[in-house]
Parts: sequence; structure tokens; C-alpha cells
Amino acid sequence: MVHSYYPSFSLLLLFLFLSHSQSLPIPTTSHPINVWPKPVNLSWPSPMAAPLSPSFQILLSPAPLLRLHPHLRPAVSRCSRRLLSLRHRPIVAPSADLPLSPPLRSLLLSVADPSAPLRHGVDESYSLRIPSSAGTAHLDSRTVWGAMRGLETLLQLSWVRDRDAVLVVAAGVRVSDAPLFPHRGVLLDTSRNYYPVRDLLRTVDAVAANKLNVFHWHLTDAQSFPLELPSAPELAERGSYGPGMRYTPSDVAAVVDYAMSHGVRVVPEIDTPGHTGSWSEAYPDIITCANMFWADGLAAEPGTGQLNPLKPQTYHVVDSVIRDVVSLFPENFYHAGADEINPNCWKTDPTIQDFLAEGGTLSQALETFVNKTHPLIVSLNRTAVYWEDVLLSPSVRVAPSAVPTETTILQTWNNGPNNTRLLVRAGYRVIVSSADFYYLDCGHGGWVGNDSRYDRPGSDTGTDGGSWCDPFKTWQRVYDYDITYGLGDEEARLVLGGEVALWSEQSDPTVLDARLWPRASAMAEALWSGNRDGSGRKRYAEATDRLMDWRERMVGRGINAEPMQPRWCRTHPGMCNLVQ
Amino acid sequence: MVHSYYPSFSLLLLFLFLSHSQSLPIPTTSHPINVWPKPVNLSWPSPMAAPLSPSFQILLSPAPLLRLHPHLRPAVSRCSRRLLSLRHRPIVAPSADLPLSPPLRSLLLSVADPSAPLRHGVDESYSLRIPSSAGTAHLDSRTVWGAMRGLETLLQLSWVRDRDAVLVVAAGVRVSDAPLFPHRGVLLDTSRNYYPVRDLLRTVDAVAANKLNVFHWHLTDAQSFPLELPSAPELAERGSYGPGMRYTPSDVAAVVDYAMSHGVRVVPEIDTPGHTGSWSEAYPDIITCANMFWADGLAAEPGTGQLNPLKPQTYHVVDSVIRDVVSLFPENFYHAGADEINPNCWKTDPTIQDFLAEGGTLSQALETFVNKTHPLIVSLNRTAVYWEDVLLSPSVRVAPSAVPTETTILQTWNNGPNNTRLLVRAGYRVIVSSADFYYLDCGHGGWVGNDSRYDRPGSDTGTDGGSWCDPFKTWQRVYDYDITYGLGDEEARLVLGGEVALWSEQSDPTVLDARLWPRASAMAEALWSGNRDGSGRKRYAEATDRLMDWRERMVGRGINAEPMQPRWCRTHPGMCNLVQ
Repeated sequence: MVHSYYPSFSLLLLFLFLSHSQSLPIPTTSHPINVWPKPVNLSWPSPMAAPLSPSFQILLSPAPLLRLHPHLRPAVSRCSRRLLSLRHRPIVAPSADLPLSPPLRSLLLSVADPSAPLRHGVDESYSLRIPSSAGTAHLDSRTVWGAMRGLETLLQLSWVRDRDAVLVVAAGVRVSDAPLFPHRGVLLDTSRNYYPVRDLLRTVDAVAANKLNVFHWHLTDAQSFPLELPSAPELAERGSYGPGMRYTPSDVAAVVDYAMSHGVRVVPEIDTPGHTGSWSEAYPDIITCANMFWADGLAAEPGTGQLNPLKPQTYHVVDSVIRDVVSLFPENFYHAGADEINPNCWKTDPTIQDFLAEGGTLSQALETFVNKTHPLIVSLNRTAVYWEDVLLSPSVRVAPSAVPTETTILQTWNNGPNNTRLLVRAGYRVIVSSADFYYLDCGHGGWVGNDSRYDRPGSDTGTDGGSWCDPFKTWQRVYDYDITYGLGDEEARLVLGGEVALWSEQSDPTVLDARLWPRASAMAEALWSGNRDGSGRKRYAEATDRLMDWRERMVGRGINAEPMQPRWCRTHPGMCNLVQ
Repeated sequence: MVHSYYPSFSLLLLFLFLSHSQSLPIPTTSHPINVWPKPVNLSWPSPMAAPLSPSFQILLSPAPLLRLHPHLRPAVSRCSRRLLSLRHRPIVAPSADLPLSPPLRSLLLSVADPSAPLRHGVDESYSLRIPSSAGTAHLDSRTVWGAMRGLETLLQLSWVRDRDAVLVVAAGVRVSDAPLFPHRGVLLDTSRNYYPVRDLLRTVDAVAANKLNVFHWHLTDAQSFPLELPSAPELAERGSYGPGMRYTPSDVAAVVDYAMSHGVRVVPEIDTPGHTGSWSEAYPDIITCANMFWADGLAAEPGTGQLNPLKPQTYHVVDSVIRDVVSLFPENFYHAGADEINPNCWKTDPTIQDFLAEGGTLSQALETFVNKTHPLIVSLNRTAVYWEDVLLSPSVRVAPSAVPTETTILQTWNNGPNNTRLLVRAGYRVIVSSADFYYLDCGHGGWVGNDSRYDRPGSDTGTDGGSWCDPFKTWQRVYDYDITYGLGDEEARLVLGGEVALWSEQSDPTVLDARLWPRASAMAEALWSGNRDGSGRKRYAEATDRLMDWRERMVGRGINAEPMQPRWCRTHPGMCNLVQ
């Protein structure tokens, strides 16, 4: 039982006679071997397979410097370990019976500038050569971070042959590669529901495996404050979900260090002044409308409360939070939130009521907050990142002068390409997280309780399922989005990249992997080497089989990425397409 | 960042001023202890907690008979083991500080009719008494199957106290319980993607934990034929996904036996004559339109092919399949499919073309198939179950006389209550699997490749996401469905129960648990004790917290049920409701 893929079969008629070449599947990939994200250049002129020598090792140059590198070292040993224990058997092997070349005994890894730090815009390029004769492969990069990208490519060029269970590496391959966009990330919300550190580490590993380079850690929100801060310990003591559900400074250090050894930056977000209901458990006096009923117009979802920008005590707390977070996270970006200020919530407070009575506005109140925090963030050598709302909210927003373009990056989530355009035209650098394309929590229905809208006997087909950002974003939807759509070259240069987002109202460790992967992988390729082929045509057709293969590899790596299609589709190329 | 729960905030205004009693949460449950599905009668007049004695044991009466019972024995030892090793700490404990009663040393389990076999309509009632004084609890039931339901209730009456980590059982509780509907099941499709036996066993365990009693095993379909049949081994040898992806007769025996020891019936489905493309690998001659391009109007989804009802060889194969399946599955229901016959597929075949040329119709062709198979199924002492299409398909259907009401049960999936009414008015017993309420795969977007509809720069909010049965069915949607809606008492008696369905185009072991649970649990309660409280009001409001608790227990039991809400909601009763 499966039922018409279309509600109306008539739509199908459009495609009915486009093709009858049932025997001729479309080309599923331009290379016989698949690497995800697809490298900018990969050539395999005369395909051979090199058995991996059991004594395979990775040699470093310059050895002294690299051997001491605190983050490359673990990356290299991890790669060797993974390679030697690789068990992946492709559903469809890269090529039927490849001739065997001499065993691959070593990889010579050379880094031109071993001291380049991991920061926004760092060079991630690399080139990889696996000869078909000599037993040594070569990986050259400008930085250790580029080297880490190359090591992930090497892993994906290896597989176990079904015929004889021999672990082989594609020989005769040349790859030269570098990303299109410098900022490629995954946002995870650890406030609505808690994720143990092990889940964060597994996610960081998956992020790196997909050549993404940012883990945007949405640490706190209205529902819980899991981050233990030395200067304000009460925030987590009272605002977290409990003793076993907090991130200690050493937890944070572990995540940051693990991410560094994967070439992944950890961008912390402490959302303020909205989304701070959880702060009220420790500091009730600085939070307005705390613990009130959300649907009385006081919040976008259950969990009310906003920092009071007019109380001096607010800044005692906020300053310590900012200083602590900056000291915990070496990353140069500091995300300060500033989204979804709810006017009614602030209006419940007498202080703010007086301020309004004296002719003040809520936008001025927000500007007060930004004026007191933005300079501090900058003084700590951080670039401030805010959600677009700080500037574009119809109800409460600041003047551009409060968030100078030199020290501010804006993250967009509304109105797709339109808001991106608005922001870059205002001169801001932009990170794209359009809810229409990159919100991975969408389409899962409404989660608030006592909802009589679900108590109807009729069909619900065609109705909004109750999720504000319906429908579910499929991998093709994610893959096809052009984050610089409609921009001129100058404007496009201000788009730093994108982030898929997983908001956790309906997520926790039980579903984390499947919600993120392989859909985040779809963005990873679009931002690394683009979503078009050489002729400029979108390559979503041939990407399907490649992404299915990559999903299989991820599952083998311990990442529970969700399935895309019946397995049958992979062995019948083109037959599961909408149009052949 | 979370964004208005509603696309338009205006909708909210409807509810804005219904309530301002932020301090007064609605009652979250009528009992201080939660059992899911809610028992028909549970009373706990003077709540106490009995520490579970480390020497706790379950005594049987009549001992000789029950000790020898092949299915009760494992159920009893499993329950003791689970109880003694229970680690569940409720987010919100049943009651603050319950007085301690004497330790619970034993459960006396008495069964009136130990020989009653597990079959449709068997008595599943039980009563359970856990005294607050004596150290012995009593579980009485008519059948061993009812006893298994009672054992699950006992497990849910136990928890670990946060205060002192003591494992306690609710003392002073009386439960008398029995289901509203005799048929309460979960359908799993193991053809689109394969599930190892361990996943089936875990699912059966979850089915039993929710007091469901049917595992509808949709074994085969167009994409793969994983079932090894002694009389037709080629079907799996050539039609399965591979050697490691088949169910051997001993696998089936293991699943059936495990299910029996959980009081769960395994209803096998071999979908015919449609959805049989995978048969063509072994028997190309009996399949029409095999391996053609689906979108040319030949199938509802990729994977074409239908059994040719006009070829004698077809029945050589089908007869062996039916006989083998009947011998593998003791269950009295045999599901023969018969859904979604595609006219164009049959029309590609010369034999059928001739038949039509001579004035025959496709409905006659289908009737030929049913007339040759239905009597065989019945002669093997099986009741035949078909999808409603066999009778209601607008294009290809049989006359009612071909499927007599005495030997036929119809499973409905279209048009919600309307088709249920049509079928019972025609005199048929009905199993309800309305796609609008019970299809758990819906709302996940389109999975066919090369789909240019996803290549659009604008917003997709409010659009159909590409899944034919959008939107995602939330637990409240599932919970609120009344499967006898609009029926008179006589008609309602023909509704045997319901099944949630998980079709596996986009599912496999990585997502199995989260797709099924806790949404299948929502149906489990609606079909066990209903979805209304004593006053006849739908109880979805108070069910939210209870289901969250049950979800936590399931996760603790190794079932990766998905989260329903932020954990915050459970500790703030009523605050996550749409209306207080």
C-alpha cells in the first residue's frame, strides 16, 4: 500500500510521455566514485583499486611542527584508525572489477602554514593524489584545517570490495578542492531539550565528515539554561533541567577541543534579551512576564520572559554571562540572539510602563540593551552576531547605528532571499538560515497540548499540519536553495554562508541524527561546491544516488542518518525519479 | 528562536482572553499515578509506596498448568526481570512523599482458563490489586493473554524514588481493565526497506507494552521480497535485497513465538495481485509491466509490476506462497492485499489485451484472481483480509459476492469515516487504518528524485510538502480519531479495531522507533479505554502529560520514542497548552 505519490494523478500527466526509455537510466554520477560534498575537481582517468596496507601510516611534513600540533595530531590518528577499520560496502560499488594497483602504504601530508588558526575565512583548500603505481599518496594543504578536509575525502575514497572483502582505496585519483562559502554550519538548540555531551561530539564529527565548519550552539533559551557559568552559577543551578543536564566548563572545553581537532568552530549563542524565561529561576527581578501563560500574547511559544533592559541589575548579570562565555569559547564570533522581542511581555513591567508613559518606545528600550552589550562584546575581541530581528522586526528594532556593520553579522531566517537582500544592501555580512529552506524541525505538526484543532473527524490533507513553518523541508528543497539568489556580485560577497537549524521543541537525543542528516549534508554540498554541474544545470538529479551512498557511509560511521528512498532505488538508477 | 506557533498571530486572538489564571494549571491527570493506556478502572484511594522486595517473585495458579505454558512462562520471567531492574525516575513523581507500606514480596497470578488460545476476540480482561498492608499483590484474568496485559500495568505502577533511589510499587491500588476493541495493531512494511529481526522483536515488545495485540507484517511489495518460502525459494533468493536481508522460516518462527509470549498476534500480509514487482526477478512470466518507469502511469510509486491473473502459471506460484505462509503463521487472519490495482500495468500485457478485446474487463480479471485465491485461503482455515480497494476501487474491483462477509474482513485507508461506513453498511467487518489519521509515514515530503518542484526560491509555507498524505499526523490527531464515528451501534459492532501503519519508503531501522512511538501509543489508548473522560469530554488535554511520562518509560525500556514537547512542559502543567 502506497498510494498515489500525487494527491491528483492528473499532475502526473504532465510528465507521462516525456520519456519511455525505461532501459536507459539517467547518468547517476559523473565519477565512478562518490565523495560528498562533491569536490570542485576530482579526476580518475584510469580507475584502479589499491589495497590498503595493514601497515598504512600518515607521514607529516613538516614533521616536527605538525607532530606537535594539538589538533592535527588527533585528526590524523583518528583518520588512520577509521581507515584501517573501515567496513563500508557500497550498495553499488564504484566500479565493477577494478584492476589492483600496488598497496597503499602511506599518505604524505604536507601543510604550508601549520600555524594558521581556525577562524572564519581560514584557507580550507587541499589537494589529494593517490597514485596508481607508487604506494604513497599525497595530501597538500595551506592549513591543518584544509588537511582535515582532505583526510575526510580520503576516507570516502575507500571501501570494502564485496568480491573478496578486501579494503581498497581508489588509485589514480586526483582531487583539488576548496569551499565556495567560508561559513557552513549546523545550529543545535540545547535548551528546549537537553543533549548529553556525547551527542554533541557525535554531531560535531558528522559536521566535519560533511566538510561543514561551524557548530552553532544555541545554548540557552526560555525553557532551560544548561550552561554552568563561574560568575553566575545560579543560572544553571536553578534554570537547568537538573544536575545531570548541565554543561560544565570542562564539558564545554571538551566540545570545543574535539571540534578544533575536526576543524569545526563552535559559535556560542546566548539569546538575549528575549528567550530568557529560564533566567528568572535565578534572577526573577530582571525578567519581565516570567512564567505567564504564553498564549495570552506574551510569547511565540510556551516559556515566557524577557530581560528587563531598563534595570541596572540586568547588566550585572548579562555582563558576567558575556565575559564567562567569551572566556569559555575561543571562537571569534559571539551570537547574542536578539530575536522575537515580544512587546506585550515588556509592557507587563511597571518600570517599562513608566518609561513608555514618559514617551519612551520599546525600540529605544531594546537599543538601550544593545548599546550596553554590543560594545562589551566588541571590546572582548568578538564579532557580534544577531538574528535579523534586531534590525528588521516590525515591532521592536534598533537603529542601524547601534549595530555597526564592521562589528556585526546578521543571521536571516525570514522571507527567504528577500531579507538576505535587505541586509546585504544595508551593508551587513549575512549568515543564511532561511526557515523556508534550512529549518529542519519544520513539518512535524503542532506540539502544544489541549489543541482542539486536532479533534476533527474529516480529512486533514492539504491543511497546515500545525507547524508554523510547514511543510517538512526535504533534502532536495535544502539542496536547491541558492543563498545568494537575486544578489549582485558585490552583494553576494557579503553572504558568508549558511546554517541549517534544529530547534529542539520536538527533538532530543532519540531523533537528533535523523533530523539533521542527510538533509544537512544537502546544504553542505551546496555551500562547498555548489548545487550545479559544469553546464550550470542544478544537479539534484544525479545527487540523489550520491547522497544515498553518503547516507549509507554515515550510518556505518555511527550517525543515524534517515533513509531517503527504498533501497531498491539505488540499484535501479533513475527509476525512482519523477522524470527520467 | 522559535517563531510564532501560528503562521498568523491573529488566530491566537481567538484564545487570548479565555483565561488569565496563569497560577492555576489545569489538572493534568485524574490519578496521581499514570498508566498508559489508561485503565478502564484504576483507584488509589490512599496512596502508599511499597518497596519492591529483592526476593520478589510471581506465583502462578493453577501452578502446574501455567508453569508449563510455553508463552506465559517467558512473559512472567520477563516481567520479574524488568521489574527488579527497573530504573525509571519520573520527571514528576506520582506523589510527593508517599508513606511506605510493607515491601511487595510476591504477585499471585491466577488464570481462569489457561488453555484459551491467542486469537481475535480472546478475553484480555484482568484485575490487579496491590494491597497497602500484606506483601502480596493479586493479578486475576480469564486468559494468559489478559494476564500479560496486567503484568504490563504492574510495570507501569513501579518507579524509582528520587529521594532515596528506592524502587517502589504503588500500594493500595486496584485496577480492573479490559479493551474497548479486540483488534489493535501496528502495520510495518518490511519491503521498501529491510528491518533486521531484532528491530521486529523490539517493535513487538513495544506493541505489547502499549497493550496492542496485533503486529501486521506487510512482508512483501514491489521493491523487495524478503520472505524465504520453502516451496518458492527463488522469490527471496532473487527478489530480496540480498542474503543478509531475508527472513528465514526460523526467523519467522522466532518472531511469531516472541509475539505469542507478548500476547501479540502476527498477521502476515502478502500483497497480491498488485505490488508484486519484486516477484518478477524469480518469475518474470507471471508479472505484467515489470521494471518499467512508474511515472508513465504504471504505478503509484516507483516499482512497477502486477501478477497476471489470466495466466495459469500465476496460480502455481500464488498457491505455494499462500500454503507456505499459512504454515509459517499460526494466526487465523491472512492478509491478501488487493490494493491499488493499476489498470495501465495490466493493459501492457498481450494476454490481458486479448481478454479486453474479447469484451472482458479488468474487474473481471481481478475477480478471476480473487475467485482462485479466496477459496484456498478459506479452505486453510483462514479469514481473508483485504484492503478496501478490492471492493471500493473506482477502476478495478470485484463484486461483493466474490468476497463473502463471513470469510472476509476489509481494511479501510481512504476517506476517513466515510469508507468505514460504506463497508460496514455492506455487512463487512472492518479494520480502520485511515490515512488521514493513522498513517505514520505521512508529512515527510517527497522522496522521488529529480523533482524540480523543490527548485524554487520562494517560500513553501502552506504548500503541500510533496507527501501524498500530508500533513504529518500528530499524536493528538491520532488520539482524537473516533473509528466508529457516525455509525449506529449495530454498524459499530462490525468495526473490529484499528491499525497505525508505517510504510517504509522513508523508514528503516534508523528511524523505526521514533516514527512509531509515541504516536502508536495514542491509538493504543483510544482503542483500549477510549479518548474521553467520564463526562464524555475528549481527554487529549490531560493525556499530554501522561503520554510524556509513558514516552519517558518507553525510552528507558530501549524504545527510542520521539519527544513530544520541551521537557519544561512536563514540570509546568498546563503551561504548554494552547488553551488553559
